[in-house]
Amino acid sequence: MKTLLWTTMIWAAALLPAFAGDGPSIESNHAAVGQVQTHADYTWTLVAAILVFFMQAGFAMVEAGFTRAKNSINILMKNLMDFSMGSLVFWAVGFGLMFGVSNTGWFGTSGFFLSGYEPGGDPWVLMFWIFQAVFAATAATIVSGAMAERTRFIGYILYTIFITGLIYPVFGSWAWGGLLDGGGWLEKLGFIDFAGSTVVHSVGGWAALAGAVVLGPRMGKYAKDGSIRPILGHNIPLAGLGVFILWMGWFGFNAGSTTAANTDVALIAVNTALAASAGAVFAMLTSWIKFSKPEVSMSLNGALAGLVGITAGCANVSPTASIVIGAVAGVIVVMSVLFFEKIRVDDPVGAVSVHGVNGAWGTLAAGIFNTGGTSAAIIGVQLLGIAAAFVWTFGAAFILFKLVDMVVGLRVSAEEEREGLDFTEHAGTAYPDFELVSYSGGSLSSYKPQ
Amino acid sequence: MKTLLWTTMIWAAALLPAFAGDGPSIESNHAAVGQVQTHADYTWTLVAAILVFFMQAGFAMVEAGFTRAKNSINILMKNLMDFSMGSLVFWAVGFGLMFGVSNTGWFGTSGFFLSGYEPGGDPWVLMFWIFQAVFAATAATIVSGAMAERTRFIGYILYTIFITGLIYPVFGSWAWGGLLDGGGWLEKLGFIDFAGSTVVHSVGGWAALAGAVVLGPRMGKYAKDGSIRPILGHNIPLAGLGVFILWMGWFGFNAGSTTAANTDVALIAVNTALAASAGAVFAMLTSWIKFSKPEVSMSLNGALAGLVGITAGCANVSPTASIVIGAVAGVIVVMSVLFFEKIRVDDPVGAVSVHGVNGAWGTLAAGIFNTGGTSAAIIGVQLLGIAAAFVWTFGAAFILFKLVDMVVGLRVSAEEEREGLDFTEHAGTAYPDFELVSYSGGSLSSYKPQ
Amino acid sequence: MKTLLWTTMIWAAALLPAFAGDGPSIESNHAAVGQVQTHADYTWTLVAAILVFFMQAGFAMVEAGFTRAKNSINILMKNLMDFSMGSLVFWAVGFGLMFGVSNTGWFGTSGFFLSGYEPGGDPWVLMFWIFQAVFAATAATIVSGAMAERTRFIGYILYTIFITGLIYPVFGSWAWGGLLDGGGWLEKLGFIDFAGSTVVHSVGGWAALAGAVVLGPRMGKYAKDGSIRPILGHNIPLAGLGVFILWMGWFGFNAGSTTAANTDVALIAVNTALAASAGAVFAMLTSWIKFSKPEVSMSLNGALAGLVGITAGCANVSPTASIVIGAVAGVIVVMSVLFFEKIRVDDPVGAVSVHGVNGAWGTLAAGIFNTGGTSAAIIGVQLLGIAAAFVWTFGAAFILFKLVDMVVGLRVSAEEEREGLDFTEHAGTAYPDFELVSYSGGSLSSYKPQ
Repeated sequence: MKTLLWTTMIWAAALLPAFAGDGPSIESNHAAVGQVQTHADYTWTLVAAILVFFMQAGFAMVEAGFTRAKNSINILMKNLMDFSMGSLVFWAVGFGLMFGVSNTGWFGTSGFFLSGYEPGGDPWVLMFWIFQAVFAATAATIVSGAMAERTRFIGYILYTIFITGLIYPVFGSWAWGGLLDGGGWLEKLGFIDFAGSTVVHSVGGWAALAGAVVLGPRMGKYAKDGSIRPILGHNIPLAGLGVFILWMGWFGFNAGSTTAANTDVALIAVNTALAASAGAVFAMLTSWIKFSKPEVSMSLNGALAGLVGITAGCANVSPTASIVIGAVAGVIVVMSVLFFEKIRVDDPVGAVSVHGVNGAWGTLAAGIFNTGGTSAAIIGVQLLGIAAAFVWTFGAAFILFKLVDMVVGLRVSAEEEREGLDFTEHAGTAYPDFELVSYSGGSLSSYKPQ
Repeated sequence: MKTLLWTTMIWAAALLPAFAGDGPSIESNHAAVGQVQTHADYTWTLVAAILVFFMQAGFAMVEAGFTRAKNSINILMKNLMDFSMGSLVFWAVGFGLMFGVSNTGWFGTSGFFLSGYEPGGDPWVLMFWIFQAVFAATAATIVSGAMAERTRFIGYILYTIFITGLIYPVFGSWAWGGLLDGGGWLEKLGFIDFAGSTVVHSVGGWAALAGAVVLGPRMGKYAKDGSIRPILGHNIPLAGLGVFILWMGWFGFNAGSTTAANTDVALIAVNTALAASAGAVFAMLTSWIKFSKPEVSMSLNGALAGLVGITAGCANVSPTASIVIGAVAGVIVVMSVLFFEKIRVDDPVGAVSVHGVNGAWGTLAAGIFNTGGTSAAIIGVQLLGIAAAFVWTFGAAFILFKLVDMVVGLRVSAEEEREGLDFTEHAGTAYPDFELVSYSGGSLSSYKPQ
Repeated sequence: MKTLLWTTMIWAAALLPAFAGDGPSIESNHAAVGQVQTHADYTWTLVAAILVFFMQAGFAMVEAGFTRAKNSINILMKNLMDFSMGSLVFWAVGFGLMFGVSNTGWFGTSGFFLSGYEPGGDPWVLMFWIFQAVFAATAATIVSGAMAERTRFIGYILYTIFITGLIYPVFGSWAWGGLLDGGGWLEKLGFIDFAGSTVVHSVGGWAALAGAVVLGPRMGKYAKDGSIRPILGHNIPLAGLGVFILWMGWFGFNAGSTTAANTDVALIAVNTALAASAGAVFAMLTSWIKFSKPEVSMSLNGALAGLVGITAGCANVSPTASIVIGAVAGVIVVMSVLFFEKIRVDDPVGAVSVHGVNGAWGTLAAGIFNTGGTSAAIIGVQLLGIAAAFVWTFGAAFILFKLVDMVVGLRVSAEEEREGLDFTEHAGTAYPDFELVSYSGGSLSSYKPQ
């Protein structure tokens, strides 16, 4: 705690070592300006990291709100643990794999346990770590929603260790890492993904898809006659709050990816706001046309779809293009949710559609609307990156979930699922003072979306 | 994504083009210092814009919490859409009307669709846009609360297009716009409204008043014998959370209105905190005296009233004055809520009293407590601005709502209102896992505030 | 509101008075750099203060979520008022006692009512005040949780005046104040408490202990046969949200305690994230071992325990040490909660264990893991500070609560407690649209944690 001199404070001298010595000179001024810019870079990067951290709360509220009351504690525990376990694992292993020195362009091999950092060393290593750690946790937490209401907690913990320690950082090193080797192999090809439509969101989304496929649908989602039954989210205001939290955090996610205090953040912030707005509006309109009512979960997911869609190109497209990108994302997300529901992939919150599918769309769009110009080669590289993310992530996550299933069991028993994971996995209940409706499905069947 | 050189990073060179060339000089240092200050301005303005954006979540939680469970989804949809539609409309039309080149001082006529901005152009246009867009959305969302629980969704959408595209930006141009013409006509007279007690809050509040008047009260609010019946908010913790979110966002709203990283933010932040605190305390005390109990919705609205009250003068009054302003606002809000209830204007969340009435009080107070001195002339201009806001906004909004009512219908049917807008407008239900009490009013009538 | 020149803006000249005059010189550049750094310091300190302010929302949600529905309004009112009353009292008295000129090292005697600040004076006084005011309110609000569900509202208001006006600032002056006398007496001994494990959290925690002891346990907590009965929190998603909010705010709490934009924030942020993560993981594991299930309230409190634990040493220990500190805190908090429950101190949310006990642990750990080296003398001073905090705070708070009890009565009647404080103290009800279970305890007894 810096103390206060009540009447006067000489800041510059205290804060700027470069100023010490025989009075100012051109050289000391030069050094001091650089130092102040560095301080601004740290401040902005930290603020952005804090905003991205808070997205964990957003994910937790969205996932809890869009699922049933009997599984709320389980959702919270998964969200708490994918950040907590995830940041410890990313400290031990992930950061080194993703950003360590790489001789191959395929993964890094230094910096585990932040060992590259010594007291007195370059603190930027630490600042960069915290910004990257909250990104890694974001990729991890996306999966939680798609696997909600039927996954064993121990299985989820194992998964979270591997995505933050292996799956995410390895792909990340292809696009953002590979230092001392001139960049990862995707980066060297010119792959555009400024803030992670593919690196974070598609990776999270495709891992979510693998999880949902391996688990199978929730009990009662598909009736014996093959019809699809809605399983309603239990607390829509909480889900809405979560979307606003995510949207706020996304300004840090996208504009913070400059990791510098500069004027580029203006375009990025405008694009982020406009794409999300267009996503919400167009998902609402699509739902209105398809269901004859403007539907709330589609509209909320539309905002998120627009945000995922603009993430890759937020620094590389015009505001007008960002509206187009968001609008298309808003239409895509509704179609995609219906598609996965139809092919019996049960994703309770729409994570695969929001993050996986729209991550791919956003990455493609960053090539199409690139203000630096586009070409078949650019589009080709974007498609290659999209494909590589799918093959690596879906493949690795599928194997991982199958292994977890074999070793500890990935899915709870039918009785546990019926009773709710809050009680069976955590010996708790989220709303003990409230009368809850029975979960027989009787009360839900009275709900008929048109 | 900027990558990390593991061992060393030369920031200054990378970030400061002004430093390029033949080594530092007095001129290059000079340019570089200005550039770093610019970066700090962008960073702070963006952080403030993000905080103001998050106020949307605060409004959504306050409005949902203070109304009934059966209308929660509708509240969320309105809040989501007034930002989403609003920012698209403000991009297309509103920003140009408010801040475009004006030859008359009454509205601007350039910059529609951000057309003044070209890639490579001054990014400050974009930064200024995002800060102004979140302000416009705030004005729009204030209205939502006063019109809650009985407005057709399509009618609300139409309204939101006109407030963000016409009503708000035109008045805004009078006080804050009028560029190249030396300011809007109110600004030229010396009107003081630093962060928008009138420009944002009274405009929102008087539009809310028009909406509530045109709609009429909710069914059951006034019994046949003329007595007033309370309609309780369904989730007070959510409303409380909303107030804390709004309070937090207000630091960005007020201190961010510097749109510059400077030392003025200190006074503004202190005044903001003290006025809100005094508002909460004095509204609580007033409710304690009037109802014999310290009442929660009055206390929460008291904090908001203090915030609205200090918004105009936050940079121009002393901390002691800010306490006085907040305390008076806290008393006013309770009296005003009771007054409007008595004259049968049904405003479910107190938006007219919090934003309209206290916006006027704050604007007057900015003249009275102005640290630069006060005079009859200054007070006169403040009163003129207050009156102009009322006449323009209430008038235009009243006509607008009447037109909407004629064209698509502003109010839902009695049956729809009874059933709840979540089901009838959005085919959803906010809390499907919870047993809800019947809405016959029986359970509510047992509530007797003293 | 600064206006926008549509085509061009000359920022540097407008913002940097040091630049005025006959063109740039070495001296004017020097002054300007210092000014820009000052602006960055203000920006960061304000952002951090805003984050710490938002912790009030976090405390409110944690406390409301972990207690019963019938007392939710009361919790909100207490949280609203400890900030609102607290900041007014801290303005009038507390800040002067804590940071005013001190000739004794035991308390300050100037700066009451911010009287040291004149318009045109050093705005840093104001910036420092807002940062300290949100800290004082944090200490105050910690107590609210431990005294939940049975305290008279008027008694709580009286308490909050004395903790923010006397108990907190006097101890604070020992560790952080004592200006013009070379620091408070603890600071002069070399006491390490960078961001307040002891100054804020233990002070809050020991006052909470005094309150819980004076009040006695809630009705029904201890059965006649001496067995301990769980009283479940009514809204776990809200409590989880509160923990995420607190965690986010803590980045401001710790890294903002630099009150300067510099590179130290990187280490502090990393340590904050890692300690909280380790705390959550180890509390979860401890609960898993002790109760055979990973328990949610313990896991959430584990994250908070890690945060409290790292607060003292966040700028003085390595990332690896911060993991150890957090992990130990996670184990301690579970043990401590069980200990206080066993000795019949009823602390509904675990505030004493999280803030009091782990504040002590964190202060000790800052000495043990100090990167500047440790010694018996350093450990001794840390232990002295821990002891001084306990003796002063517990003693003063115990006397205070006894006095409040004598004058106005500290505890509500048994009937009021049974009915719930929302109705009896505030004439309200938090969830009027929901069917609530009876509070006879019957439904709760069916809950059997293993």
